[in-house]
Parts: sequence; C-alpha cells; structure tokens
Amino acid sequence: MRHLLDTRDLARADAIRILDVAEDMAATQHREVRKLPTLRGRTVVNLFFEDSTRTRISFEAAAKRLSADVINFSAKGSSVSKGESLQDTAQTLQAMGADAVVIRHGASGAPQTLATSGWITAGVVNAGDGTHAHPTQALLDAFTIRSRFFGAASRGRDLSGLRVTIVGDILHSRVARSNVWLLTTLGAEVTLVAPPTLVPQDVSAWPVRVVYDLDEAIASGPDALMMLRIQLERMNAAYFPTEREYSRTWGLDAARSAALPPGSIVLHPGPMNRGMEISAAAADSPRSTVLEQVANGVSVRMAVLYLLLAGERTETEEDGR
Amino acid sequence: MRHLLDTRDLARADAIRILDVAEDMAATQHREVRKLPTLRGRTVVNLFFEDSTRTRISFEAAAKRLSADVINFSAKGSSVSKGESLQDTAQTLQAMGADAVVIRHGASGAPQTLATSGWITAGVVNAGDGTHAHPTQALLDAFTIRSRFFGAASRGRDLSGLRVTIVGDILHSRVARSNVWLLTTLGAEVTLVAPPTLVPQDVSAWPVRVVYDLDEAIASGPDALMMLRIQLERMNAAYFPTEREYSRTWGLDAARSAALPPGSIVLHPGPMNRGMEISAAAADSPRSTVLEQVANGVSVRMAVLYLLLAGERTETEEDGR
Amino acid sequence: MRHLLDTRDLARADAIRILDVAEDMAATQHREVRKLPTLRGRTVVNLFFEDSTRTRISFEAAAKRLSADVINFSAKGSSVSKGESLQDTAQTLQAMGADAVVIRHGASGAPQTLATSGWITAGVVNAGDGTHAHPTQALLDAFTIRSRFFGAASRGRDLSGLRVTIVGDILHSRVARSNVWLLTTLGAEVTLVAPPTLVPQDVSAWPVRVVYDLDEAIASGPDALMMLRIQLERMNAAYFPTEREYSRTWGLDAARSAALPPGSIVLHPGPMNRGMEISAAAADSPRSTVLEQVANGVSVRMAVLYLLLAGERTETEEDGR
Repeated sequence: MRHLLDTRDLARADAIRILDVAEDMAATQHREVRKLPTLRGRTVVNLFFEDSTRTRISFEAAAKRLSADVINFSAKGSSVSKGESLQDTAQTLQAMGADAVVIRHGASGAPQTLATSGWITAGVVNAGDGTHAHPTQALLDAFTIRSRFFGAASRGRDLSGLRVTIVGDILHSRVARSNVWLLTTLGAEVTLVAPPTLVPQDVSAWPVRVVYDLDEAIASGPDALMMLRIQLERMNAAYFPTEREYSRTWGLDAARSAALPPGSIVLHPGPMNRGMEISAAAADSPRSTVLEQVANGVSVRMAVLYLLLAGERTETEEDGR
Repeated sequence: MRHLLDTRDLARADAIRILDVAEDMAATQHREVRKLPTLRGRTVVNLFFEDSTRTRISFEAAAKRLSADVINFSAKGSSVSKGESLQDTAQTLQAMGADAVVIRHGASGAPQTLATSGWITAGVVNAGDGTHAHPTQALLDAFTIRSRFFGAASRGRDLSGLRVTIVGDILHSRVARSNVWLLTTLGAEVTLVAPPTLVPQDVSAWPVRVVYDLDEAIASGPDALMMLRIQLERMNAAYFPTEREYSRTWGLDAARSAALPPGSIVLHPGPMNRGMEISAAAADSPRSTVLEQVANGVSVRMAVLYLLLAGERTETEEDGR
Repeated sequence: MRHLLDTRDLARADAIRILDVAEDMAATQHREVRKLPTLRGRTVVNLFFEDSTRTRISFEAAAKRLSADVINFSAKGSSVSKGESLQDTAQTLQAMGADAVVIRHGASGAPQTLATSGWITAGVVNAGDGTHAHPTQALLDAFTIRSRFFGAASRGRDLSGLRVTIVGDILHSRVARSNVWLLTTLGAEVTLVAPPTLVPQDVSAWPVRVVYDLDEAIASGPDALMMLRIQLERMNAAYFPTEREYSRTWGLDAARSAALPPGSIVLHPGPMNRGMEISAAAADSPRSTVLEQVANGVSVRMAVLYLLLAGERTETEEDGR
C-alpha cells in the first residue's frame, strides 16, 4: 500500500488486510509494554488545514506507539496562511524527512492531488477532505462492526450478511461516503436515512437503499445503526430542518432505541451532540460502540501507518520512488 | 495513589512519600543520562482548558524524562469549543489510551468530577482548577522549603517548626489554598497577609493566622515568605487596591526584604510581576527560590506521575478499576 | 561552541567544522535507522516569539533525529503575552531542564542578550532575530552551495572562487546579512542586487559589491543566485516598488533564468512567492536548490545542536558554566 486516500478504490482483500493488522495492533495494546519499535526513525507529519483535535491526536497516538517521530503542522499561523501552495508545503515536509503525510483538508480531492501529483514520494493518508472521504473513519467503523458481531472469529472475515443503516446529513458527510464504499465492498447491505434535502443528487448511483423515515428503517431491523454528527453551523440553512424537527424526526431517542432488534449496535463518529442526533441514554447504552470506535481508531491508524511505512512494497511501487 | 486532586485530603505520610520520591527524581537529573525508562509505553495527556504554558511544559518535561508519550490537548479549536462535554472528552482520551490525564480547568471541581464520576479509569492530576486547588504547585513549594531548610537531611521529614507567610490575593488563589492545606498537614505554621477585601469569608475555618499588615508579618520573623502573583486583569475591580497602593502596601520591596530574618527564604509561583508584588532585587536575591521552584516542579511532577502510573496499588484501588 | 548567534563572528574554521559535521549528519539520514542516540536525555526548547512553522519543525526534526526531547514554547497565549520578561522566561525554561534554547524573536539582538546576559547556561541558537541574523539559514545555504559545486570533495573546503549574487529586499533581510558574513568568511565573492530603496545605508562597509540591475548582475555570470523572499506585507510602503514593477524588474523570470551561466544554481530560502520574486519554471528547474536547502537545513541544525550539546568544550567554557 502506497497511500490511503479513499475507500472507494480499496479492494476487499486490502480492506480485510488492514482490519486484520489492526487486530494485531489492538492485541499489543493490552500487553504490558505497549510501544512497538516498528517505525523507529520514521517521521509522520500531521498536516492539518482544518482543526480536528480528535483525529490529530488519534494519529499522533498511533504513530508514537509505533515509535515514529510525530511533527504536527497546523496550517494556521504558518506560511500556508500567507499563501504558500500545497505543493510547496508538501515538498518542504518531505525534504525535511517526512515518511508519511497525514492530511486533513477542507477541499475535496486535496489528498489525491498530493499523492498523484508526483510532488512527493512520502505515503499520504487522507484524514478527511471536504465532503469527499474519511477512509480511516470508515475502517474503524468496519472494524468495530466486525468485532462486535464476530469477536474472536473476525480475522479474515468481511461483513457479509450484516445490514447497516446510516442516519443523518448524508449530503455533507465524508464519513457516510467512505462508509458506503467500504461497507458494501465488505459485503454489508447499506441503507441511508435522511431528510430529502440532505441526500446527494447522485445517490441513485450508489449501492444503497434510501429511506426517508427513521422509524421505518428501524422497523426493518438493522444490525448496526450509524448516527452521523450534525454540524450545528448548518442548522439555519434553508435545506436544513429546524433543530427541534431534526431531533424529533431524525434523532435516536429512547423509544427508537428500544425498538432496535436485540443484538443490534449503535455507532457514532463523535463528538456527539447529546440530545440532538442521539439521546444521552442511547449514547451510553450497551448497544453504543462510541468509545470502542475511538479505541479502534488508534489500532486502525497504527495498521495503516504500519502498512504504508513498514509493509512490503511491490516492485512497481519501488520503481515509482 | 490513584489521583492527585487536592492537598486538603492528602495524608501526611503520602505527602512525605511524594516529596521523597521527588528527591530521587531530582537526583537522577544530575547524572549523565537523565531519561528514565519507567513510563515507556504509557501515555500522558495534558488536557488544558485554560492556557498555561509553564505548567503544561513542566508536566510535559516530567513525563518525557520518564519516557512516557505526551499528547497535548488544548481545548481551543477542538470539539470542546463546539460544546462537547467534559465526559465525552475524557472518555475519548481514555479510549485512545491515556493512562493519566493532567487537567487544567477554569471551573473549581472539574478534576474531582473527572476522577470520581466513574467515566474513566485513567489517573487524574489536577493542574489547577478555578480558585480551588493546584496541588503540584503546593508540593513543589513544600519540596523547596524542605530542601532549603533541611538539605541532605530532608528525606522522611515534614516541615514542623517552620513558619510560612503567604502574601497577596488569597481570595482568588488556588495556590494559597493548596499551600495552606499541605503546609499545615506537614506541621508548618501558616500566616496569611492580605488586604481585607482579598481574604476569603470562611478563612476563620482555616488552620491559619491572618494579619493585615505586611510589615508586622515580616517583623514576626517568618522562615519562608510566599509572594502570590497578582492577576493584573483584576486590578480595576472595586475590591482591589490600586496598582500603586498594592505595590507600596503589599509588595516585597528592598526595605522589607532587608527586614527579613537571616536564613529566611522568599517563594513566588511565577511568572512574577517585577515591581508589583516583588521587586527585581528581591526576585534575584539569594533568598529567592523562584528558579529552584521551577526545577523542583519538574521533579515533583515526575514523582506524581510515577506514583500514579508505576507505583504499587492497594487491593481496594485495584477493585475500583 | 557555546552558542550560535550570528555568522559575523564565526571563524572560517568553525564554519567549515559545522558544514563537515552536517555532512556526517546528512549521511546518517540515508541509512535504514535514521535516529541517532547522541542527545538522548537532552531537552531542546523551541522558544518562538514569532510564528515560523518551517523553521520550528526543521529544528524539531533535527533534535528528534538526535533523540533529544523537544518542547515547543510559543509566546502566544503564554505568560510572555502577559508581560513576562525575556529573562524570566529563559530562566524558567532552563530551570525546567532546557539544555539548548532555539529562539526566534522579532527584536534584533534578543538572542545575544539571552546568551551573554549570564541569565542562563543553556546553549542559545538564533533562529532569526528582527532584521539582524539567521545563522542556520546562511549555514544551510553555504552547505547547499558547497555540495552542488564540490560534491564528494566538499569536506574541509570553503567557497573560494565562487561568486554568489543575492537579490531582493536586502534592507529588511536577516537572511541576506547572515549570508554576506558567512559566504565572504568562506571566501566567496558576494554581489547584492536590489532596488536603491531596499539597500541598507551602511552597505559600503560590507564586503560586497552592489549593483542596481538584475540583468547586469546575471550577465556577469554568477555561480549562485539567491532570490530573497518578498514580504508581501511591505508591498504598499513608500520605499517599495509596486508588485508588478517588482516582479518585472527584480524577479527571476524565464528569460533571466535562461541567461544564467551553465552550471549555476538558484537558491531561495522559502516559502516562495511563485510569480513574484521567482517564476514557477525557475523554482522547479534543475538549477533550483530549494528542496535541497530544506533537507540540508535539517542536517545543518543537527550539526549545530550536536556541536552545542555533545561537542567537547574548552576549559574556559567549562569554567564559564
């Protein structure tokens, strides 16, 4: 693996490989000495053009547990804010010795540009770009679902036979997009639930079913319900329901939570707006995987950094360097 | 020790234990290789809801010398500023693998809430909460006093027989409060000196003497004089003396410095307002322990992190996990 | 070497020593394990009073590859912004265990004050002060020139026989000043090219030739052309050409680039304003050393930190501590 940019082009075998390596990583975290020497001497740069403390420290923790050096580069207050181009920033980071660049950017496609431009040879990990993709989030969600449903028998498995329902502002959600591609690649059936104004126009081309009623979606008995975070700053836009309407119509409250089938789980990428898209009771119930997702996020990011920086490369890839 | 939240409930034996371990830590810092492998693989998160570069880097230096990984989490620009609850933030940090959370918070009691809520199992260290407590500051002050007065004979000792006078804005000072509890637990006699408007209403319940005249306090011959930092932003409040009156009536100038008994010392938590609560001459005199306090701060914080993360736990504590 | 403050007082032998050690450091970076244990247990503090992400992370990468602990201290949001003096800040950092302080400051002379005041014994590295000096930038430029022209035969050499031309806002440039002193100490002939309003008044006392026409300077056949970064915020000042006039008269465009002698090189300290002082074609041409400069910056800073913290000290220096 040279880069991790999107789950759309991730082959089933590669996705399962990442999840399996993440299991190995998770296992090391339960032993006494949790630091692995694997990436000693390697440098991982967190290049964040948008604030995201959670994602940044998850990658930072992952890299440090593999003994890599981590350099945090926030675009604010840097020459980037004085108009330096992405090309110059990236080439500078690589010239300083970056082996991997973890990039979060407001513009959809920026990580792809970085990886395919020929500007740098460092591995590129997309940590969220615009409304486009957030592949490590989807991988940690898939890892969480697989662990909950298959436990010790997870290794090597995909998600065939499971039904996952994603609820909320699909239109603006890179988390939803990355999950749609990854979960369907892994054999899950995906249903989207959203207000009509928050469904993308091209959704008919996606391998999903769309319903416009959360109660109907719950009645059909999903195995996993993924509640998306509502961006409160979008709340007053014309296409957006009012806050009250949203939580009443699209929020996971106690009644809906009770209507979920036994054994089903509830995911949320965090941070949660308790009382909005998810009630406190649902967030803290045994169904909820919110904290497992966070823990699994570190394992999945360890796996991705390991595969990018320590994994074998094909001959073609070596030639490309 | 599971947490360090307040010096008020710290037993004499536990306080002396921390000071003794801090001596060991200080001793290692004078040798060639100053890095101890003790906390390798452990993660310390600095969770700072208020800016405090000094305290943050003191904890950071302490953790790194014990080979822990350090992750700095500043609430600004994070999801915390978008309204995430303390519970969700803390649980997220622990899910990412935090073994200890060092918290600075503007609200008195926030660290206690964190430690006693059952939200997390990580050790919690209070790095200053509202006007309530700042236990590592008091511990480093006690360590500094003990070292100056008892030197190589410090180990195992308390501060019996010493008289400590604390001067300044007691009302708003968590440093004063934490020192009052710790120093009296350790057997010192504590006197407070302050303008009447800057003394807490419940001070009669504290194990201290209060005087309203700095010259009188100095004439009574204290062993240690602790000058509190004046928060300049409070200066124009009705209850506050004018700047000029403050420095003339409550500041440690050359004349007062000269009137101190031989062998007495002057403490200040820093950063100093030279010319306000302390003159430059007093700040830089041999009596002044300002820089020793900073150095001792790292040793004391190493001791606290060591005892929280590497110390033996009692059976009861293990049960509580 | 105790400090690195300025290239003006750097002896030829010392300058060559730094460049030679930097070569050793660069060599280690090409091997599998790039982390050297040399500065394990040492603490390097980046004390930045001005934002400069590039320089900060270059020093951070250099220190980490030598296994030092790095603490970043940004003056913003710290007690410095509440009026703490440079003396108190520096003494505090040293008391916390800083072995070297890398300082960037807006006031010319601040690093000298720090190093010569007797406040601290830590090594001081000037990372740029006002319009005065930026010695590691000049060293990395000299390293880059030496490598390009002498390759494997660089060790022990100076720059005798080479002609270097520096173009741009000399008046406000610490990069230009530090290069003038270092390059001439190393035997190069230096020519400055600038609009008359952007040449310092005392330039006649400098060991350089000044010309006011870039085409004339190029026609004279320099070996190395160093284009300075234009500070866009100065653009509207009375002494400054308009943006259009600047790029037309003082920018390195395609025609001028083509007129350079074969084998000559083009340096730029970065970040570049493409289209202003340098065209994109020139920036990305094989003549351009921009990315080598960045990579060499890490090697040079490793050398400087190594010589300050691990190098032998003379007896006099030891006494001074």
